[in-house]
Amino acid sequence: MPDLLIGPDPGDPRLVERVAGQDENGEAVEISVPTERPLTLYLNGQEVVTMMTIGDYPEYLALGFLLNQNMLKPGDAVTAVDYDAEIETVVVRTAGCTDFEEKLRKKTQTSGCAQGTVFGDLMERFDQVTLPAEARLTVSQLLALLKAINTTPSLYLEAGAIHGCVLAQGAQPLIYMEDVGRHNAVDKIAGYMFRHGIGGGDAVFYTTGRLTSEMVVKTVQMGIPILVSRSGFTAWGVQLARKAGLTLIGRAKGKRFIVLSGAERLVRD
Amino acid sequence: MPDLLIGPDPGDPRLVERVAGQDENGEAVEISVPTERPLTLYLNGQEVVTMMTIGDYPEYLALGFLLNQNMLKPGDAVTAVDYDAEIETVVVRTAGCTDFEEKLRKKTQTSGCAQGTVFGDLMERFDQVTLPAEARLTVSQLLALLKAINTTPSLYLEAGAIHGCVLAQGAQPLIYMEDVGRHNAVDKIAGYMFRHGIGGGDAVFYTTGRLTSEMVVKTVQMGIPILVSRSGFTAWGVQLARKAGLTLIGRAKGKRFIVLSGAERLVRD
Repeated sequence: MPDLLIGPDPGDPRLVERVAGQDENGEAVEISVPTERPLTLYLNGQEVVTMMTIGDYPEYLALGFLLNQNMLKPGDAVTAVDYDAEIETVVVRTAGCTDFEEKLRKKTQTSGCAQGTVFGDLMERFDQVTLPAEARLTVSQLLALLKAINTTPSLYLEAGAIHGCVLAQGAQPLIYMEDVGRHNAVDKIAGYMFRHGIGGGDAVFYTTGRLTSEMVVKTVQMGIPILVSRSGFTAWGVQLARKAGLTLIGRAKGKRFIVLSGAERLVRD
Repeated sequence: MPDLLIGPDPGDPRLVERVAGQDENGEAVEISVPTERPLTLYLNGQEVVTMMTIGDYPEYLALGFLLNQNMLKPGDAVTAVDYDAEIETVVVRTAGCTDFEEKLRKKTQTSGCAQGTVFGDLMERFDQVTLPAEARLTVSQLLALLKAINTTPSLYLEAGAIHGCVLAQGAQPLIYMEDVGRHNAVDKIAGYMFRHGIGGGDAVFYTTGRLTSEMVVKTVQMGIPILVSRSGFTAWGVQLARKAGLTLIGRAKGKRFIVLSGAERLVRD
């Protein structure tokens, strides 16, 4: 069993519900399904988004979302993260007004919604990141990591219908987060890394989700040089990975995988 | 081969790219991957969102997104949908100013982003829908439909890493849309139904994606009484389906499935 810093808690009754129905033969069945609830995120006085989440680790989710959307900068001083389960809100407070609030204020005075601004900002920061060239992962480590992830007790094993993300060092999973939204799982890891001062330079990031542009951009922004998924690729995900020099490994299941970018970090042992 | 009104075009070179890499043995491989590109949506003069999409049927995607987000009402008169491939934008024009633009204007003058408003609006309309109680689907039809979908030529069969949605009548697929974002595939179907005056009252909706709250809300808003997925459920998805009287069938693969809501529409033949 890997020695995780933090991971899913499949025994938490708030995260999984039992529901009754019928199977294909009309027989009564009862199955476990993950919960899903809204969580509205505020940055200081500014409402940012309502997310659908399984509901564990809301503080890490909030911080990670703001970081990965570039609404919060790694240097911003976070003074408090206040989660209120009853009204389903989480408020991230910073010492000063953030760049995002300022941009949103300007944007809404001119031509509307903040979505476009946010997207533009994302790509701006992406272009500035240099990933460590010297990071290495052996094929044996990769296969051992895949096995360790699949045998860790998880909400996926308990209830299915959930995405998982893992930050690992070599074959060792360190942070394992799950959520009904795959980007929430990524964001929770980013939030944990920020809160505990963990860098991504020698890490491997694993996701059950596809290797889309958004997943590649987030991994690069987190400074992580190697991204692995059991799912497939999109063309733009591959292009962005090659541009950033990210090692991109997909369709990783059992002993099989395909590497489409940064193969020099993968050591064939 | 089913007789589709509209479906994927796996032969379209804009939708699939060939990329080269290495497999687990270090051998050179070339695989097909779906494309992914940004598309910025405007409603009249208002920028709404930038979506990541495979890029086919942008007009249907635009209309369906606005409808499913309640930014456009079924009664709104759409005067034009202008797609510009070069600058990756699509503009939906209506005869008058829409309710959404009015709400967004008010909202941005008070406390910020439109996301919260949009979410509240979604649930408001959900509560008003009554799904037809008399709709029926036999188990034979369901199994034949699953087989028809899996054997239809698709981008999924060509390149993987893509979600698909199908509007069907009994065992017959009618509209088959795919996209790298699963909600885009749903929205394209909603847009096609709107443009061609197709109602959902006697239809079945199939998705490869999970049966989350958002998928259930969209299906109910489209007036479709039966929702089927090869993936699993979330607890809130099940709750909302039961509240709306939606027939909810998940984990549907081969000859197996589980129904968790509205089993009375499913005829055991």
